Amino acid sequence: MEKIAVGMLGFGTVGAGVAQLLEEHKQELQHQVGADVFLKKALVRDLEKPRTGQVNLREDQLTLEADEVLGDPEIHTVIEVMGSVDQARKYITQALQEGKSVVTANKDLMALHGAELLKIAADNHCDLFYEASVAGGIPVLRGLTEGLASDRITKMMGIVNGTTNYVLTKMSQDDRPYQEVLLEAQELGFAESDPTADVEGLDAARKVAILANLGFSMNVELSDVTVEGITSITTDDLAYCRQMGYTLKLIGLAERKHGKVELAVQPMMLPNDHPLSSVQNEYNAVYIYGEAVGETMFYGPGAGALPTATAVVSDLVTSVRNMRLGVSGQHVGEPLNEKHIKPDSEVFSKYFLRLHVKDATGTFAALTSIFAEEDVSFERLVQWPVEGMVNTAEIVIITHTTSLDVYKRLQQALHSLDVVIDIKSSYRVEGGS
Amino acid sequence: MEKIAVGMLGFGTVGAGVAQLLEEHKQELQHQVGADVFLKKALVRDLEKPRTGQVNLREDQLTLEADEVLGDPEIHTVIEVMGSVDQARKYITQALQEGKSVVTANKDLMALHGAELLKIAADNHCDLFYEASVAGGIPVLRGLTEGLASDRITKMMGIVNGTTNYVLTKMSQDDRPYQEVLLEAQELGFAESDPTADVEGLDAARKVAILANLGFSMNVELSDVTVEGITSITTDDLAYCRQMGYTLKLIGLAERKHGKVELAVQPMMLPNDHPLSSVQNEYNAVYIYGEAVGETMFYGPGAGALPTATAVVSDLVTSVRNMRLGVSGQHVGEPLNEKHIKPDSEVFSKYFLRLHVKDATGTFAALTSIFAEEDVSFERLVQWPVEGMVNTAEIVIITHTTSLDVYKRLQQALHSLDVVIDIKSSYRVEGGS
Repeated sequence: MEKIAVGMLGFGTVGAGVAQLLEEHKQELQHQVGADVFLKKALVRDLEKPRTGQVNLREDQLTLEADEVLGDPEIHTVIEVMGSVDQARKYITQALQEGKSVVTANKDLMALHGAELLKIAADNHCDLFYEASVAGGIPVLRGLTEGLASDRITKMMGIVNGTTNYVLTKMSQDDRPYQEVLLEAQELGFAESDPTADVEGLDAARKVAILANLGFSMNVELSDVTVEGITSITTDDLAYCRQMGYTLKLIGLAERKHGKVELAVQPMMLPNDHPLSSVQNEYNAVYIYGEAVGETMFYGPGAGALPTATAVVSDLVTSVRNMRLGVSGQHVGEPLNEKHIKPDSEVFSKYFLRLHVKDATGTFAALTSIFAEEDVSFERLVQWPVEGMVNTAEIVIITHTTSLDVYKRLQQALHSLDVVIDIKSSYRVEGGS
Repeated sequence: MEKIAVGMLGFGTVGAGVAQLLEEHKQELQHQVGADVFLKKALVRDLEKPRTGQVNLREDQLTLEADEVLGDPEIHTVIEVMGSVDQARKYITQALQEGKSVVTANKDLMALHGAELLKIAADNHCDLFYEASVAGGIPVLRGLTEGLASDRITKMMGIVNGTTNYVLTKMSQDDRPYQEVLLEAQELGFAESDPTADVEGLDAARKVAILANLGFSMNVELSDVTVEGITSITTDDLAYCRQMGYTLKLIGLAERKHGKVELAVQPMMLPNDHPLSSVQNEYNAVYIYGEAVGETMFYGPGAGALPTATAVVSDLVTSVRNMRLGVSGQHVGEPLNEKHIKPDSEVFSKYFLRLHVKDATGTFAALTSIFAEEDVSFERLVQWPVEGMVNTAEIVIITHTTSLDVYKRLQQALHSLDVVIDIKSSYRVEGGS
């Protein structure tokens, strides 16, 4: 049986998972591609470092020299699992220019330089696959490019960050504050020691950029994504959500209408019967709305060595098949649509608002007149006294649909209103009718 | 731009949906395949029949003669949406032998003759795609063959029949009996006027056979699937499920262990936090467990003209791409594994049992001794009097895991036990720890 050599850049947990799959699923993989795929060489930073994976590479499979991977003419596909942006970009560019196909799990890189790298791949008739960069083991990029190839995608909503979904799930289920749950998540390995990129929504934003590029066939940039994290969410907010039949999730949203798109990562309130509402703990899911197909959702593990390795090796299978058929680099095309980002006046949504106001005559009139001025009506409104605070009432509002520019003006006006003590929280409400 | 002709067998609702997508998404499809795909000819039974779709075909696009589709050398891919088994099998065989690739939505045909037709396709270097045959618009077959290509699938559980899921959802939500909800479903178009194939589980069984063939790379037959429908489910059963934190769903299950598989369609009780439990109304979902990836789920519409057409046209896109790349018929392979069906002694599960028993001294002892004899222990047991029935008690049991042969003997023993008045219901309990 023909032997096909692959190289690897980096050999951390995902790399070890890839090596394990290549070994344990050898027979199935041979059946899939009609050849024996083997890992010839992996670039590492330290040859002596003890490695914990199931599979131990032989000494001659490890190297400190990138050229032993990138410059080896026998190596057909290069798997990049080293992370980082600049170095990975340089290596991947070099691999593609050498005529090697590339499989990467690097979301930072693809969000920032995906268009550039895909162009280099096309120019060199190579494949560049990156399924593992979004939602780990869930084959959602294939879902978009192949399974829904015939449809026109209008909306994607993703729970695409496992850390924040774990934290929000536990906060809500156990009624425990953010900091406490985050600490626990760090101890359990569901959050990094520096969780900034996750909890501030940056990681999710990268995945939104990648999804939008593919789903809308449009070169959007990471900086086009509006980003808000979960750090200021309180257990009070979550309790209100539960009471009102909603679930609060950090959602990466990409929506298209009349050729213009909106890209955002924000905590959003979803009705409990929305398919994304039951996605719990560290799981990920991407909800996709297509004009013809309607609602679909892809659910699964968003991280972890073996799930991510599954996506990498499935990409590798396609890459090797394409090579054997002589059709590498044929699926990469220029984006069909020019980029147009929606202005705030075309971003429509409902909003949840929780205010502390003075419990005095005239408060309600002052408040409602501001909403009336902006022509924003209420879907729900509840008022009650705040325990332990004299003369203070809490008002919770869900608005009817309004545009973002109007809502921003409304928030300004509320802030400057004398009877409003504080805007305690404000969330976008999505997914309802 | 190159023009590529496709033909169609049948022009019902799905056919009309396909024509509509080819028309409305013309620009996107051209971008996907780099050619202009057009519907040259559709075989119909009646040229004069008024057609209700969005797209009206011209007179010269309709024909009563199959040969005008199958014998036209210009037609590259044939779309089969006529349904039926024998006629469709004959036409598809002919098309493949003429060197035409085929896209079909025909689950009956693929469940019965899939292996044979795939072989003919491979022999003639043609593609035969059938994504639309399982779970309508959900790209689950691609998920299995491409997205999870590198993994070893050990379990698939599908809600793959929209009619039964709609009926069970409404029965449970509204506490209304089967017959009443079924009638309503028929009026609303969620159930056929003859619902037998759906409610008896036969339709789901076809999809289980197709999924198992692909996911396990094993030629199973429709007759290997154990089938039980939903017709005897009562609102009482559903109430007990809710009380105990379970959801009752008609599940198509395919499980593999040590090279042997189990194939079944049955009502099964799932814990409420199982991903399939929140799949409501007419929606479908396929839950897949892979050794490496763990839990994934694909959710979406299981039927409907446009969702099904999305799957058909996405297959068409792949078929046309393959033709242009000269790689048609390359993805079809012989199954990797020989068929081995698990005997009852290797099918393990928990079971829910609801019994009416004589409310008399010794009943409990008689009952528990039978369970003890078969070495089946209780996970839960509740007893209370039955309202309106003198001297009758109801006992609800959930067993610990046991094998199917033991459970069958246990049911026999219970039936013949003097103190047991009736076994009111019995369901398999799945998806827990």
